[in-house]
Amino acid sequence: MTARLAAFLAPHSVALVGCPSDLSRPGARVLVFLQKHAYSGRIYPVNPRHGTIGGLAAYPTLADLPERPDVVWIGVPGVEVEAVLTEAAQLKIPGAVILTAGFGETDAAGRKREETLRRIADEAGMTVLGPNMLGFINCWDRVPLTFSPAGGLDRLIPGALGVASQSGALGGVVVNRAFDRQIGVSAMISTGNELGVTVSECLEYFADDPRTRAVALVAEGIRDGERFKGAAARLLDAGKALVALKLGRSSTGRRNALTHTGALAGSHDAFRAVARQLGIVEAETFEELVEIGGFLSREQRAPTRGIGVLTTSGGASIMTADHLETRGFRLPRLAGTTVAALGRILPEYARTRDNPVDVTAGLSETLFEQALATLVGDPGIDAVVTSVTGARGVERAENVARVARAAAKPVLVCWLGGSLTSEGIAVLDGHGVPCFVNPRTAALALTAARDVSEARRRRRGAAARPGRQVAAPPGRLDYRGLSALARRAGVPLTPEALVATPREAVRAARRLGFPVALKVIADDLAHKTEAGAVAVDLPDARAVERAARRMLASTRRHRVEGLLVQRMVRGIEVLAGVTRDATFGPLLVVGAGGVQAELLADTASRPLPVTRADVTAMLGEVRALAVLQGYRGRAPADVRALAGALLGVAWIAQVLGDRLVGLDVNPIIVSDRGAFAVDLLVEIDEPIRSRGVARFDRIGGRPSRRRAR
Amino acid sequence: MTARLAAFLAPHSVALVGCPSDLSRPGARVLVFLQKHAYSGRIYPVNPRHGTIGGLAAYPTLADLPERPDVVWIGVPGVEVEAVLTEAAQLKIPGAVILTAGFGETDAAGRKREETLRRIADEAGMTVLGPNMLGFINCWDRVPLTFSPAGGLDRLIPGALGVASQSGALGGVVVNRAFDRQIGVSAMISTGNELGVTVSECLEYFADDPRTRAVALVAEGIRDGERFKGAAARLLDAGKALVALKLGRSSTGRRNALTHTGALAGSHDAFRAVARQLGIVEAETFEELVEIGGFLSREQRAPTRGIGVLTTSGGASIMTADHLETRGFRLPRLAGTTVAALGRILPEYARTRDNPVDVTAGLSETLFEQALATLVGDPGIDAVVTSVTGARGVERAENVARVARAAAKPVLVCWLGGSLTSEGIAVLDGHGVPCFVNPRTAALALTAARDVSEARRRRRGAAARPGRQVAAPPGRLDYRGLSALARRAGVPLTPEALVATPREAVRAARRLGFPVALKVIADDLAHKTEAGAVAVDLPDARAVERAARRMLASTRRHRVEGLLVQRMVRGIEVLAGVTRDATFGPLLVVGAGGVQAELLADTASRPLPVTRADVTAMLGEVRALAVLQGYRGRAPADVRALAGALLGVAWIAQVLGDRLVGLDVNPIIVSDRGAFAVDLLVEIDEPIRSRGVARFDRIGGRPSRRRAR
Repeated sequence: MTARLAAFLAPHSVALVGCPSDLSRPGARVLVFLQKHAYSGRIYPVNPRHGTIGGLAAYPTLADLPERPDVVWIGVPGVEVEAVLTEAAQLKIPGAVILTAGFGETDAAGRKREETLRRIADEAGMTVLGPNMLGFINCWDRVPLTFSPAGGLDRLIPGALGVASQSGALGGVVVNRAFDRQIGVSAMISTGNELGVTVSECLEYFADDPRTRAVALVAEGIRDGERFKGAAARLLDAGKALVALKLGRSSTGRRNALTHTGALAGSHDAFRAVARQLGIVEAETFEELVEIGGFLSREQRAPTRGIGVLTTSGGASIMTADHLETRGFRLPRLAGTTVAALGRILPEYARTRDNPVDVTAGLSETLFEQALATLVGDPGIDAVVTSVTGARGVERAENVARVARAAAKPVLVCWLGGSLTSEGIAVLDGHGVPCFVNPRTAALALTAARDVSEARRRRRGAAARPGRQVAAPPGRLDYRGLSALARRAGVPLTPEALVATPREAVRAARRLGFPVALKVIADDLAHKTEAGAVAVDLPDARAVERAARRMLASTRRHRVEGLLVQRMVRGIEVLAGVTRDATFGPLLVVGAGGVQAELLADTASRPLPVTRADVTAMLGEVRALAVLQGYRGRAPADVRALAGALLGVAWIAQVLGDRLVGLDVNPIIVSDRGAFAVDLLVEIDEPIRSRGVARFDRIGGRPSRRRAR
Repeated sequence: MTARLAAFLAPHSVALVGCPSDLSRPGARVLVFLQKHAYSGRIYPVNPRHGTIGGLAAYPTLADLPERPDVVWIGVPGVEVEAVLTEAAQLKIPGAVILTAGFGETDAAGRKREETLRRIADEAGMTVLGPNMLGFINCWDRVPLTFSPAGGLDRLIPGALGVASQSGALGGVVVNRAFDRQIGVSAMISTGNELGVTVSECLEYFADDPRTRAVALVAEGIRDGERFKGAAARLLDAGKALVALKLGRSSTGRRNALTHTGALAGSHDAFRAVARQLGIVEAETFEELVEIGGFLSREQRAPTRGIGVLTTSGGASIMTADHLETRGFRLPRLAGTTVAALGRILPEYARTRDNPVDVTAGLSETLFEQALATLVGDPGIDAVVTSVTGARGVERAENVARVARAAAKPVLVCWLGGSLTSEGIAVLDGHGVPCFVNPRTAALALTAARDVSEARRRRRGAAARPGRQVAAPPGRLDYRGLSALARRAGVPLTPEALVATPREAVRAARRLGFPVALKVIADDLAHKTEAGAVAVDLPDARAVERAARRMLASTRRHRVEGLLVQRMVRGIEVLAGVTRDATFGPLLVVGAGGVQAELLADTASRPLPVTRADVTAMLGEVRALAVLQGYRGRAPADVRALAGALLGVAWIAQVLGDRLVGLDVNPIIVSDRGAFAVDLLVEIDEPIRSRGVARFDRIGGRPSRRRAR
């Protein structure tokens, strides 16, 4: 499948429809750019009013061309697009780039026009980019088939960073900024309304493209969630990092994502869940996207032991340490031999000879190089960040580059000045040494390398683990069905017994151990608490018997199946559930019990299926679940049992498949030994009844408003 | 006091000690820079081995100079500094800049050498900058008395941004970056080890300096917390924003702050508390520091109603809306007249004519200017952000600048390309139009303007409110003393009664209303729960009587003052306290009750004294206290009563003054009507006993481990 995009991006011939003969007009850009960069294929301007354009023979229509071109560029006004595409389809031209805007991103009429285009393309089996984007730039093969000014830059720098962007303008921004830093790009593909090619298909292409080592993505909304997840996983498996600038986080942003390229923006939370699972690095600015993407396109080693820092200023030392340590990196003490060697190099007044090493601004270039090489040689560190201040220029940069290229570990440079330092930075950029203009981005780049590597490890672990295959239970899910399903899923339920009489309830309570909760089970009893059908914290036999009699009396007119006696369990309350995202499908959600998860959105989520490593990572993301680690001398909670229960919850959702609308386990109670699901609520889509709500709820612990509804 | 720094920064004559005759050597930089920028005062190189240096007469010693210079530059090796400073003191030279490093930032011997210098300077009443910094640059008066390469830039751009930095290297970085963006600087002062002049004094100077409109600060640690708070308040009152890049957030960062300039870094939380109170804007990178500082040096108006956004790309629209809305700005619908006017300007396919307005990339320069002017004229918005993509250059920039300069509201530009856009950006920079290279920083700049303006409003409100003056109670604080103090402070206590017998306890409970808590008061009873001296949730008379008998029996051997009966109060638990920061003094701390405040550091703090507006802002900062606003249909909590109680807690701390070590109220229980302090613990420094702990605790609600200690 990625072969079609590979062929599309390296056409042997292109036809340009809508290219004016006046090359100073914007519409002629694509021709100007192709000629400027000496595109090696054949270019056919199509224009009925001119014999030659830009020194090339022009043809009145596509049918008049001397050969069938590989790609047609369509830059005509909106009303003419359909006719051009139809002609191209009839001529069996395999690919089209539709620059023109005013389709699906506008209104219902525009969406209809776009549907017509899609039908034409699909029927002809054409590969179509657009409409409403700025084309693509293939840097390796020198094909700037684009309206973006980036195509007119003096030099296209071929390299290892792939760029996919729904917005053509922003794709061009990425290319321009990457080239400014000498970061080579394999190809930039803008996809616009994604009539044909989506960013997901671009990611698949980059995963297979041997010239691409990392990908920068600018996306407003993902149209094909399943394909996107697959493509991101394919990149991860191929050892290629994906850095994403995801737009549409705010409500207006999302509204505009809808009007802009017609993409369903989905919830940003769901995108983030996918990102966390598949090691997608989220960038907030173009600087981050380009510098981190560029770094990961050249560097795949992730530090695990510790970082060595060497600076020319105490302030830079502190700043660099701040940004690294707040992101969880260690700056270990250096080996004695390293400190001793530095002592021989550094002047008397440069007292900070341990990590960070502050060599001061006055050190000679030779000694600076020696100090850096010494630090790089320390056995306890596996990456070095050096923060350079001031205007030392080309000589320092050459020396740093020499050390960096010889090093067996990543060496990152932060050069903190402004214009005074641009010469030095350009030298490092030219040598391909990762250079940042602030320590924050350097720390983010290392964080990205670590996160991608951890995601890869989690995924490898998952592949080794066989999945449990169980058929979904047929028909409507009742109390017993759900209960059985939970047991099969390995979701531990509170110790309990279903009994018929107050006397049996007392016996069961004695067996289970006091205190207990008591609850009437009746399928026509919706609001148990209000009906007096729930009692909790019953301390002794007398209380159980009394409560049982009262409850049975008050629910006489219902279809009572029995009394459920449950042992009260104590511990930390965890909320788990599965929701369905319109784009990315079912997501497992975990939070702390109580109101905080809801009020503060303090939850973690992952698309299904999840692995044990995913679940463990999720528990680490929920702030309020820090209590699981133990606090004020309490024993840590049984996180292993909790993770098992959560995997069981995810498994139930998978077994129910498309029938599942939503699933809530609120709470799971986790003690220092074991985790118990106390209340389970499943909402399913019934094939016959329009939407049935099967409810399986269990009461224990303290009743909450939510559980008691 | 700031007059001395004003005079120091504009010397009529300078002596340079330690300036080599070879001007290519680094030590001669200061002379080269002064001459390059045509310093208008007199320069006296002091060097016993040379008759002329840089074309100027050199003198063997300071005593040989033809006049007493205003400032002496000391760039000699460490061992010679003391002698030079001594000579300067004897000659009554009023100011000195000590470049040399190797003093307080190194070790005990270095600290001792620095103390000697301090004594010399203090006795002579000298104004001293340094040691261990790079001097200062006064741009208005062209005095680049500095070792920083920034002093050698081709042009010093005088302007409204003051720069204070403990690190000389980082101060130079700020100046270089500001000039790169045509942001004028009034002066850059680096303070190093702050033997004399501290950054706080620099802030005072900038507050009084009429040429400074905003200040950028780089600080590792504040040495004079009280003076710093005063200086920041002075800036705020003068209508000048302070943007701070605060280093030393991580443990290694703090350790290095200590070794670097010997500053006590203090906790970053305390700095943040001061920042929140006094509207100090925290920057994370130099880009933020310079762009936000530069913006605020030219723009003091803060948007309150809504922001209008105009872009040339749908992607840029979404990105800009994201960054503004996630920071709480509204993008309101535009007025009908505005939308209609835009409709006449924009092409058919540019469908997004409401806020954000996407004019698309193809619009002509004239129409772009008209569209921008139209949006600026909308009555419902009070700031405009325009995001420009692509390579449109000088003409567009000139047009935007014309609209921006004519506008009665701030117009911010984001120009999102790379090198392709630098020409346009330079034009805007030249016109002083705030221009950003990503929408995030533009949004941060507007956020900063809003935060500063809100801090100013809070402070004005505080000035109008008279303080309550009450003398501190003398002697040791016992139970009754603290209780009385809490009442006088307006901290509402749980309804309660102190009684002697079980029968009286029942009567009191009937009066207070069930359920109640019961507690033995005895000053020799440390662990009440373990001693069986606490009972909660007693539902009726029988339970109260039984508990009272049992408790009195079990505490027979203690010095029992009586039984405290308290009505149980229900509501949201809030934790409040006062801690003492080594740098900034007492801080009021507020968090949610329970373990989360401690585990997640989910607290807000402010230095004392606090205003009601401060306290209200604090409650908004604690994530877990979002419950106060009401949730799941519950009524909002009585935030007014809670704020009153917190003000009372702060007042107690102020009355206790320096005697206070720590104060804990845990919890305050807030319902929809009222707030009650349930447990109050005060630790004070006794004049006689080394440290006495006076404890005043009250039990209600559910007992927690902490309260039950």
